Amino acid sequence: MPAPVTLRPGRIDDVETIHGALLRLGTHIGAHQEITSTPDDLRRYGFGEKPAFSTLIAEIGGEFAGLCLHFPIFSTWMGRPGVYVQDLYVEDRFRGRRVGERLLRRVAKECRAAGGVYLRLSVDTDNETAKAFYEKLGIGWSSYEQVQKIVGDAFFAFADTPEE
Amino acid sequence: MPAPVTLRPGRIDDVETIHGALLRLGTHIGAHQEITSTPDDLRRYGFGEKPAFSTLIAEIGGEFAGLCLHFPIFSTWMGRPGVYVQDLYVEDRFRGRRVGERLLRRVAKECRAAGGVYLRLSVDTDNETAKAFYEKLGIGWSSYEQVQKIVGDAFFAFADTPEE
Repeated sequence: MPAPVTLRPGRIDDVETIHGALLRLGTHIGAHQEITSTPDDLRRYGFGEKPAFSTLIAEIGGEFAGLCLHFPIFSTWMGRPGVYVQDLYVEDRFRGRRVGERLLRRVAKECRAAGGVYLRLSVDTDNETAKAFYEKLGIGWSSYEQVQKIVGDAFFAFADTPEE
Repeated sequence: MPAPVTLRPGRIDDVETIHGALLRLGTHIGAHQEITSTPDDLRRYGFGEKPAFSTLIAEIGGEFAGLCLHFPIFSTWMGRPGVYVQDLYVEDRFRGRRVGERLLRRVAKECRAAGGVYLRLSVDTDNETAKAFYEKLGIGWSSYEQVQKIVGDAFFAFADTPEE
């Protein structure tokens, strides 16, 4: 019988492992060069006094098998919190063990226990594998909405324009 | 000379005003019936010990002119925080005073001061006015990503499925 999948919250000494998983996820979706974060960034923002995100780690036989990194969001329409899944990653060699599904379900369960009513995430429009995976779980495409954003230097210029 | 636009954080006694603005925003984009939140929800989740969101209110001559409701997010790619704008609303009679732009710029400025590097939001794909407004400010369409979500009863069923 194969070793079971266990889930636990990430700790500050998992930071190198978490960062490594993000790099592999980036490579997987062809965006490796976009990752400029360091383990120190994750340590600082994720494990300080007011953590900007939470992590859930899956292990199989004591080995790192997957990661779900998430943070809380809020629906003013429903008046209730939700959870945003920023990154979901499963090690290639542990595919077929429903590691991703377990991670997402646990994150949803924890969100629900805290009064939450929804889960959201973004997916690359050309990542058909990921889209099919989410759809199968009932995490459907929100076709009527689109994301707008401003990042980096453009963001700084926008923020720095003097107020009248 | 017209009265200037002033900006200030929302307070707990603004909750009815904020909720009213959300209802008018919902009506404006044809989603009024989807708003099931109450002022009490906003009070509970926005002004308690661990607020799930922040509000910025615009006033002109002491009158409510607009609202930006937002909460923090985090980019693991960049290793830095950002801000998500959940709702942006401007009273019809104060259009043309760049109230929306001022609200967004102030929210971006506060995010930047806290180490943030980006701003995100969602917009209805058929809301051409809103899309043109955001594009003009440099808050561009993130065309390569799409939103997936699971909400309400489907979310509860997903979260409640027993783990193996």
